[in-house]
Amino acid sequence: MPSISRRGMDMPQSPIRKLVPYCDEAKKRGVKVYQLNIGQPDLPTPQVGLDALKTIDRATLEYSPSEGLLSLRKKLKTYYDRFNINVDVDDIIITAGGSEAVLFAFMACLDPGDEIIVPEPAYANYMAFAISCGAKIVTVPSSIESGFALPSVEEFEKLITPRTKGILICNPNNPTGYLYTMKEMIQLRDLVKKYDLFLFSDEVYREFCYTGAPYISAFHLPDIEEKVVLIDSVSKRYSECGIRIGAIITKHEELKQSIMKFCMARLSPPLLGQIVAEASIDADRDYMLMNYNEYVERRKFLIDGLNRIPGCYSPIPMGAFYTVASLPVDDAEKFCRWCLEEFEYEKQTVFLAPASGFYTTPGAGKNEVRIAYVLKKEDLAAALKVLAEALKAYPGRKTD
Amino acid sequence: MPSISRRGMDMPQSPIRKLVPYCDEAKKRGVKVYQLNIGQPDLPTPQVGLDALKTIDRATLEYSPSEGLLSLRKKLKTYYDRFNINVDVDDIIITAGGSEAVLFAFMACLDPGDEIIVPEPAYANYMAFAISCGAKIVTVPSSIESGFALPSVEEFEKLITPRTKGILICNPNNPTGYLYTMKEMIQLRDLVKKYDLFLFSDEVYREFCYTGAPYISAFHLPDIEEKVVLIDSVSKRYSECGIRIGAIITKHEELKQSIMKFCMARLSPPLLGQIVAEASIDADRDYMLMNYNEYVERRKFLIDGLNRIPGCYSPIPMGAFYTVASLPVDDAEKFCRWCLEEFEYEKQTVFLAPASGFYTTPGAGKNEVRIAYVLKKEDLAAALKVLAEALKAYPGRKTD
Repeated sequence: MPSISRRGMDMPQSPIRKLVPYCDEAKKRGVKVYQLNIGQPDLPTPQVGLDALKTIDRATLEYSPSEGLLSLRKKLKTYYDRFNINVDVDDIIITAGGSEAVLFAFMACLDPGDEIIVPEPAYANYMAFAISCGAKIVTVPSSIESGFALPSVEEFEKLITPRTKGILICNPNNPTGYLYTMKEMIQLRDLVKKYDLFLFSDEVYREFCYTGAPYISAFHLPDIEEKVVLIDSVSKRYSECGIRIGAIITKHEELKQSIMKFCMARLSPPLLGQIVAEASIDADRDYMLMNYNEYVERRKFLIDGLNRIPGCYSPIPMGAFYTVASLPVDDAEKFCRWCLEEFEYEKQTVFLAPASGFYTTPGAGKNEVRIAYVLKKEDLAAALKVLAEALKAYPGRKTD
Repeated sequence: MPSISRRGMDMPQSPIRKLVPYCDEAKKRGVKVYQLNIGQPDLPTPQVGLDALKTIDRATLEYSPSEGLLSLRKKLKTYYDRFNINVDVDDIIITAGGSEAVLFAFMACLDPGDEIIVPEPAYANYMAFAISCGAKIVTVPSSIESGFALPSVEEFEKLITPRTKGILICNPNNPTGYLYTMKEMIQLRDLVKKYDLFLFSDEVYREFCYTGAPYISAFHLPDIEEKVVLIDSVSKRYSECGIRIGAIITKHEELKQSIMKFCMARLSPPLLGQIVAEASIDADRDYMLMNYNEYVERRKFLIDGLNRIPGCYSPIPMGAFYTVASLPVDDAEKFCRWCLEEFEYEKQTVFLAPASGFYTTPGAGKNEVRIAYVLKKEDLAAALKVLAEALKAYPGRKTD
């Protein structure tokens, strides 16, 4: 049998995925599993988006342009205007989700052996896309004790080598919910300016900032316009992860042309998703506000609840719909599996994401989990109760 | 400004794409352009597919499983059964079009520096996906004189090195319309068996075989089941290129798991496209037959017409909806551009694809074009007339 590629073997299997079979088994046993493990919003897609599907008047579902439908790109421009992100329609390239946006951005910017610096914990799939390109993710640790604030300039500078091509942030952050401050963003700006790096900024959670602190886009930063590669997606903000519509936004002309070559090779982003996305941008303020308020409430409810469980600690996430919490356990991976495999409380259990999958530093985040608040409050309440009971019963409980 | 990656720079810009601005200019001048340059079928998407969009009853357009919807994979299995392609549901992984299928197949099989052998002329984007992986496409020339038949075993063997990981074919072929014979398929089988190679077989045009000669899938070949990586797509057979639904089919367990890692990294194939694709597989025989008959007629009409133009020659394509024809010109790239930029006949012109983009051998196919018969007969008739007039007027005409 011919052998498979190294890069496929090197690609780590996420600890969340490894737990999926145990979750399935638990469900088969009739156990109700509260799934806080993935960022799949349960809220409804805007009705205008769903309606757009019913009124498609095309005899042939043709390729759309490789850069995406012009009408969608124009509408996205008006959307970015609302956030004072000043980009032209030509700066916007539509992709199959934020995933393809990250892949193409990496493909077009990074050669094998090139490095990008990413604060950890970080979204695990960045790693997979870097491996696809033969590039290397170098992580700079942030810690739960400091609420996952941006590491200092010195910590970044220690990691910069001649192969460093960029810094990647996710803001607001998945998995931590951290929202970078103006001071931190200026720190990043100064770094990319000084070392002539790309600033990859994944801002798909921008609608979800809860503290009144400003959301600062990488495009708000002065004097590095051409170094910014913004990653976007409609998935989270309109609860339409399945339509696979994202975007890369850049003002670097040469990069734009290179990204377009990757876009042309795959011919076209999904047509139907583009139609839904374009309509969804017209979702009214009530829709956006209702979802926003829902997350605000869940966040308060979840974080308060977590911090009341003895030995648990979660910083207060400022954005997105995740938090990384520390638990009084020997090993969160073992604990999460134990919850699915061995534990139940009144025929219920919880599926949490071990945070180890978001770190590259061995051993980091060993007692941490990521919790996505994508369930309604009653379910969060039940899940918190189950978690508290699980922690009481867990044989590997640790107290310090 | 930070520099872009080498691989983006290395990726060739297709000569077709280079001509698009000239086509746009011609249209602006009020010239009617017959576009025979791309494989965008003009025929209707099955009504059952379109109807499926109107009846979607979901409040949230969620992620689908990374491997695709189980219901679609089950239905695809029944579809393959009709062609005696014996695969299990577990062997089928849904992708964002045939494009992502090729990319993931390459990513999971090929390491940087690995080589695959491809008969040329070949679909130009294979090259782009190979470059994305750092792998190398090595072409074995087929020629218009032999009707683009498969090159001999010796020609393949001359190219095999320790880095050769596979052979890639497209059957029926884009761009030539060639359909590989049983003898040729057995030759490929023996090669992949002897040298333990992958056989990547792109069979997206299987519905379009016109001569009564059998379509032989790579999965029909005995004893190499685990070496076959089949690439499929619903785009062409149901005229729904825009929905971006394809598939990789493999029985190589380790490969399957590796491909799934790439699938998980990009989370999910397009949900809406999967719903349309699944419904389209139920398109009735009348729909399939009507389209088939339409292509049969167009093919005869186009090839007869081409071969009647002095100095033109096209072999008779046995499948797909393309042909590669030789023209009496100094340079087909120049000629195609001239048609768009300088020529018009009764306010009409043609957009043909220079075949040079389908060859890697320098100078190969210099007087050849690919013509897609994706226009109705009346338009093909007009296009043929325009082409004949253009060839009369073209300053770089060559006669031998």
